[in-house]
Amino acid sequence: MHDFTFFNPTRILFGEGREQEIAKEIGILGHQKVLVVVGGASAKKSGLLDSTLRRLDEANLLWVLHEGVVSNPELGHVEAGIAKAKEHRVSAILAIGGGSVIDEAKAIALGACNEEEIWSYFLERRPIERALDLFVILTLAATGSEMNGNSVITNERTRHKLSIASPRLNPKLSILNPRLMMSVPDAYIAYSAVDALAHILESYLTSQKPLPLQDSLCEAVMKNIVSSAEAILADRSAYEPMARFAWSATLALNGLLTTGIGGYSFPNHMIEHSLSALYKVAHGAGLAVIVPAWMSWYESKNPEAFKRLEREFMSAKELKAWFKKIGAPVSLGELGIKEEEIPKIVHNILETASRWDSREYDSSSLEVILQKAL
Amino acid sequence: MHDFTFFNPTRILFGEGREQEIAKEIGILGHQKVLVVVGGASAKKSGLLDSTLRRLDEANLLWVLHEGVVSNPELGHVEAGIAKAKEHRVSAILAIGGGSVIDEAKAIALGACNEEEIWSYFLERRPIERALDLFVILTLAATGSEMNGNSVITNERTRHKLSIASPRLNPKLSILNPRLMMSVPDAYIAYSAVDALAHILESYLTSQKPLPLQDSLCEAVMKNIVSSAEAILADRSAYEPMARFAWSATLALNGLLTTGIGGYSFPNHMIEHSLSALYKVAHGAGLAVIVPAWMSWYESKNPEAFKRLEREFMSAKELKAWFKKIGAPVSLGELGIKEEEIPKIVHNILETASRWDSREYDSSSLEVILQKAL
Repeated sequence: MHDFTFFNPTRILFGEGREQEIAKEIGILGHQKVLVVVGGASAKKSGLLDSTLRRLDEANLLWVLHEGVVSNPELGHVEAGIAKAKEHRVSAILAIGGGSVIDEAKAIALGACNEEEIWSYFLERRPIERALDLFVILTLAATGSEMNGNSVITNERTRHKLSIASPRLNPKLSILNPRLMMSVPDAYIAYSAVDALAHILESYLTSQKPLPLQDSLCEAVMKNIVSSAEAILADRSAYEPMARFAWSATLALNGLLTTGIGGYSFPNHMIEHSLSALYKVAHGAGLAVIVPAWMSWYESKNPEAFKRLEREFMSAKELKAWFKKIGAPVSLGELGIKEEEIPKIVHNILETASRWDSREYDSSSLEVILQKAL
Repeated sequence: MHDFTFFNPTRILFGEGREQEIAKEIGILGHQKVLVVVGGASAKKSGLLDSTLRRLDEANLLWVLHEGVVSNPELGHVEAGIAKAKEHRVSAILAIGGGSVIDEAKAIALGACNEEEIWSYFLERRPIERALDLFVILTLAATGSEMNGNSVITNERTRHKLSIASPRLNPKLSILNPRLMMSVPDAYIAYSAVDALAHILESYLTSQKPLPLQDSLCEAVMKNIVSSAEAILADRSAYEPMARFAWSATLALNGLLTTGIGGYSFPNHMIEHSLSALYKVAHGAGLAVIVPAWMSWYESKNPEAFKRLEREFMSAKELKAWFKKIGAPVSLGELGIKEEEIPKIVHNILETASRWDSREYDSSSLEVILQKAL
């Protein structure tokens, strides 16, 4: 056990119909006007946006809509959201969506009560001292953003995908109603499973063993991600596996599983963020390609971790086969990325690598990993 | 997965020397005068009390000392603490000790900023709306009180041991330095292990299966409590097992393991609290006697849970043998309690049973369980 600090002040309301409590919860904290952040058509089509806005109206809460967050949310849209939040003097943000919407909402919550350029927080690790209160209604479980202080934004001008993190960006409240997640397409269930597994695997495989407590907690969550994802894909009307999947995905990156594990890194996310930034691939799809390639490259560097993973969960080979089985891509080719793109990807990664504390990755190791991913 | 609400706003500083940060942390929240709550001689003997008071002095924080909290903390001493907190107008409480000290500190934090009789909160489930900020330096890991909102107090006049719970009673900050826990006597390591295991077993065995996610998390923590307790008892100078034990005990009752499990109850705690209230036995020692007896009585009522427990962890018989092996008592006789006391114990339990939502326990079932514990 290494030293650690743990703080996760997000309150979770989990279960059917709990989004009905949103207006009451926003009101309890004294807010009168909120910026409602949503993505494309799905929250509208499902009726969730309309019913939520109606609830805000009924509670006499004013709202301003900020629509159109894209997968891999972009800086320009964040800046527009910040401008809107400032113009309308909202005191809180309500995100309705998945990880992309929540990540953008966090960046807006930060930018709306600070004068600095928002991108400077991503570039310079500027200390985060205040942000507007953030509320979340989750519609896709994968990133864990609903219960952590991380935000990942893509600068579409420079094509850099960078992150910030602070407990001050943790949502005050996140509502997880698994019923709202049932209409997620099969492919995104697969990507979500890969993303949640990757969050655990990164720290599991890059930390020094033995870590019997944390490893066994990680294995418990990983096994449940696998079994619940399979059950979801086998029966798209089943509630229990979606509920179990959602809470597992939240636990995968809410800070619990890395308490006391000492140093670890996120090389797969580092590499994948460049794929997303350059080619707009879905984050989970990019991870499904990178993780098995990275694992086969990294295995000899932490054999004890891989031995335990194979014994208690899956080998690298089995994991790749499972990604394939649930319909996730496992090669750059399936993402439409050709071998000649590798130098460009490596260049993009190296431009952002210093942000990841991953000094062991140079152009030759990155090329080897990407070659393995072809 | 059942619906749930999860909220745990306690910040944890874990590791060697982290108690040095206490004055800074108290100051950050704007406090100028604190009530320091401690038990008997141990915090003095170790020098921890002196060094902490010196740190408060150096940070120009005023303090008032409230000494002499006993194991199974008593109402009269709580009331004296509340009077002291009010008289000196402290704005925060600092608890230095184990579960008893923290539980008393929570009750003082509640009573110090409310006008109602403190015991009425325990008797009437009065809503808890505010409490003073509470800071903790933990010296014995067992009860989980350092990261939850529970407080258990004994009314020494009526001999009732009752509890209250609210996230408003969660410590703002708890410091866990395993090094400070190294001098705990062997017997109390055993009692602590039993207590932490009991916290998990109660909900594990009284909830309806299947709960694959929560059960596997519970098993991970229980296995680590067992292996770390054994390692501590085998080498009283080893840091790693104490660290792992401490964090496992915290996780055992910080709300995580019961998220989404639906209904469950705490019958062993209900029964044991009467043993503590009547005979002043150490809580963990009382649980070591009650848990195996209760398990053999309850097994047929939730066979699926017991089957899984045996497969993934231990059978009731193995658990009793393990309690014995680590030096915990496993019979009422070892606690000096004779068979003729049983009616008196049953009477005490039934006086408090309505507080526990454990309506299935009547005098005949309680007698059977206590007979099994002889």
